[in-house]
Amino acid sequence: MARNTQVSADHNAPPITQTLAQFVAHHPSRGWSDSVDHEAHRTLMNWVGCAVGAATHETAAAALGAVQALQPAAQATVLGRRERVDMASAALVNGISSHTFDFDDTHLKTIIHPAGPVASAALAVAEHLGASGRELIDALVLGIDVSCRVGNAMYPDHYDRGWHITGSTGTLGAAAACARLLKLDVQRTAMALGVAASQPIGMREQFGTMTKPFHPGGAARAGLMSALMAQHGYTASPKALEAPRGMMQTISTKNDWTEITHELGQRFEISFNTYKPFACGIVIHPAIDACAQLREQGVRPEQVERIELKVHSLVLELTGKKEPADGLQAKFSVYHGCACGLIFGRAAEAEFDDAVVNRPDMVALRRKVVATVDNSISEASVDVTAVLTDGRRVHVVVEHAIGSLQRPMTTAQLEAKFSGMADTVIGVERCRALMAACWGVGAAADVRALTELARP
Amino acid sequence: MARNTQVSADHNAPPITQTLAQFVAHHPSRGWSDSVDHEAHRTLMNWVGCAVGAATHETAAAALGAVQALQPAAQATVLGRRERVDMASAALVNGISSHTFDFDDTHLKTIIHPAGPVASAALAVAEHLGASGRELIDALVLGIDVSCRVGNAMYPDHYDRGWHITGSTGTLGAAAACARLLKLDVQRTAMALGVAASQPIGMREQFGTMTKPFHPGGAARAGLMSALMAQHGYTASPKALEAPRGMMQTISTKNDWTEITHELGQRFEISFNTYKPFACGIVIHPAIDACAQLREQGVRPEQVERIELKVHSLVLELTGKKEPADGLQAKFSVYHGCACGLIFGRAAEAEFDDAVVNRPDMVALRRKVVATVDNSISEASVDVTAVLTDGRRVHVVVEHAIGSLQRPMTTAQLEAKFSGMADTVIGVERCRALMAACWGVGAAADVRALTELARP
Repeated sequence: MARNTQVSADHNAPPITQTLAQFVAHHPSRGWSDSVDHEAHRTLMNWVGCAVGAATHETAAAALGAVQALQPAAQATVLGRRERVDMASAALVNGISSHTFDFDDTHLKTIIHPAGPVASAALAVAEHLGASGRELIDALVLGIDVSCRVGNAMYPDHYDRGWHITGSTGTLGAAAACARLLKLDVQRTAMALGVAASQPIGMREQFGTMTKPFHPGGAARAGLMSALMAQHGYTASPKALEAPRGMMQTISTKNDWTEITHELGQRFEISFNTYKPFACGIVIHPAIDACAQLREQGVRPEQVERIELKVHSLVLELTGKKEPADGLQAKFSVYHGCACGLIFGRAAEAEFDDAVVNRPDMVALRRKVVATVDNSISEASVDVTAVLTDGRRVHVVVEHAIGSLQRPMTTAQLEAKFSGMADTVIGVERCRALMAACWGVGAAADVRALTELARP
Repeated sequence: MARNTQVSADHNAPPITQTLAQFVAHHPSRGWSDSVDHEAHRTLMNWVGCAVGAATHETAAAALGAVQALQPAAQATVLGRRERVDMASAALVNGISSHTFDFDDTHLKTIIHPAGPVASAALAVAEHLGASGRELIDALVLGIDVSCRVGNAMYPDHYDRGWHITGSTGTLGAAAACARLLKLDVQRTAMALGVAASQPIGMREQFGTMTKPFHPGGAARAGLMSALMAQHGYTASPKALEAPRGMMQTISTKNDWTEITHELGQRFEISFNTYKPFACGIVIHPAIDACAQLREQGVRPEQVERIELKVHSLVLELTGKKEPADGLQAKFSVYHGCACGLIFGRAAEAEFDDAVVNRPDMVALRRKVVATVDNSISEASVDVTAVLTDGRRVHVVVEHAIGSLQRPMTTAQLEAKFSGMADTVIGVERCRALMAACWGVGAAADVRALTELARP
């Protein structure tokens, strides 16, 4: 009967749950630099654009159909739609929409998409409470700090074993943000994190299906409910995150606790958030960027005999789909990404339309891409050579793609991206007003001025 | 940059998701023996009693408070209360209540408490749909088969690494039961299981807090929503359970696929369900039973100098709390269990009242219990010797405790247990009628006849 009753256990973990609860409950409002605060606005604005943009997608429609079977009360806005639903359901649907295009944001150190779970939960609660924009931004910064720090501690082991780290850490970030908005004390904030710790969401096998964007949405809903339960007196283990059979040790064999405690309250992970210029997995971005550069250098698809692509192994592991059948599969095809870069010089949502994916010139060009793994190349980089029919070779190395921390999206680029997604959903005028509301939300007396503009 | 991008992977798993979906969607109604069907009624009846019994507990009240913040529609009954809430919230609260006393049921091979997640989800959907009792029983049998078979495949590794297997497999069982009730086809049933596969719930660190009963409740809600989403066209990976980065390989290094496929549709795991005679973790039951037998043999607490307890290591690991401060902690104290057996000859919910836990005679007797680990003793057994002040030694060995498969609870014992919990909540008359409705539910035209009786 004897058996190994725990694979590995660190019985000396610091009190992570308590430390984070203290931080979330007591860190001063706007207790960070102007640049951190500005990044929070960029994060919010980018997230709103993504959610509005995908609001009429079949993924959002299916989720909303399920929610409506519950006959929800009209507490909070489904961004980009006329419907209002209860706040937990709004968190779910907005979290799904915002990640549907795979066009949102990325905390590069962990590949977490931080806004989806946290902003979706926070905005729904803030809207229902009539909270100020400052309270919303505070909650967003603190919530993202919680999920990304937990991610830093567990990455890469946790991700490698199959977890979609956005959803698994996102529940904690969403709970933290909602606890802050609900003004829970340290004790109840710890309980909110504790209930959330039993609900890590998301397996990587789901990539390429609607369940991938479900992960941030589900995490948003679970975190929000955890905070509501704690508010009403629900209890959890005060060591739910760090104990030997708590969340982190159960779902990751790597747990570097110092990633959570080091410079807590001084360094904010939202500072390291980036925004996608292309509507697909971040690991394809250098390849798209490189092929767009080939296009700028005058290389035309019909001249191409072969495109030689050297990439880190993770690129092919995550996005090695050689013959994508539709737009969703194309999001996981570095081959399609290369074709987009060379043919269009861009890869927004329109370039992942099923019809575009199946265009003969796209199919033909994809087949000319020969990808090889070279692990001397970083995950953030790519080495591309276009071999032309006349024997010429055009070589491009992208060290850091556009949208990376080293080459961040400008405000103008973010606004163009927002309009490109949201104009057709809520109209050009409303879209402009909504962007302005996002930029100014930190000074808004009531977030409902913003959510009202997010409806068609 | 090179790293081990998956710890271990079985790329040759059989199509588990598809096989289970086929089974759930197409297995004939009542396609099993009468004894299986009878066991399903016992499972339902025992679960209803537990949920009604704990309906006024602070745990249910806290959960319901959070749910009411969503202003839910009155779709389904909160068992034992006047409130009606939306079906997802009813699944949550009933799942919590039914496990609050730790007095529900146990699938001994996996220590899964199967009814909590599955029955809570199924009854809420059945009530809202006005389904027949036969449809409910069918869903219960099939849902429990799914979660217990997945549990069989992963146990014990999955449990040992920290997962509360009731919640982690329960989401799948709940999704299966709801898919059946919603009459989803094979394809959509597979999608329901797929969405659910991203939501394993529950860490063992939560034992002793309200978040332990949250696990079956959260699993019920998550499974129910997964089925609703699939009904509305939501998609997931068709290999979400078995793929290398699907649910099972992500959360368990042991995956014996034959446990899922062997005799599927012929052997039903609900046949192996057992019902707790004592309101605490199953591993304490042999010790309580043994001490109650000492009491029957005339041993009186004041005669006892020492109680020598020999147990499997898991007993102390799970329930080794030497000095429990309150009723909740006492549920994880084999020492308290021994004192209950010797002093009261029983250990129902009343014996876990805070006041009882702190009675001086209980505290004194607990301190006389000396537990030692002997792994030649099975988890289901115990060896107890009472050493009396006059030097006499009274020895009892319990191979299988009352409530085990070998010594099952009788119908009369189940009814006494039900009344003991539910009489004070809904009244003696209603309680009797509700029990009758449970026994007869398989023939009921509409389950709402039953749910109506479960209100005070």
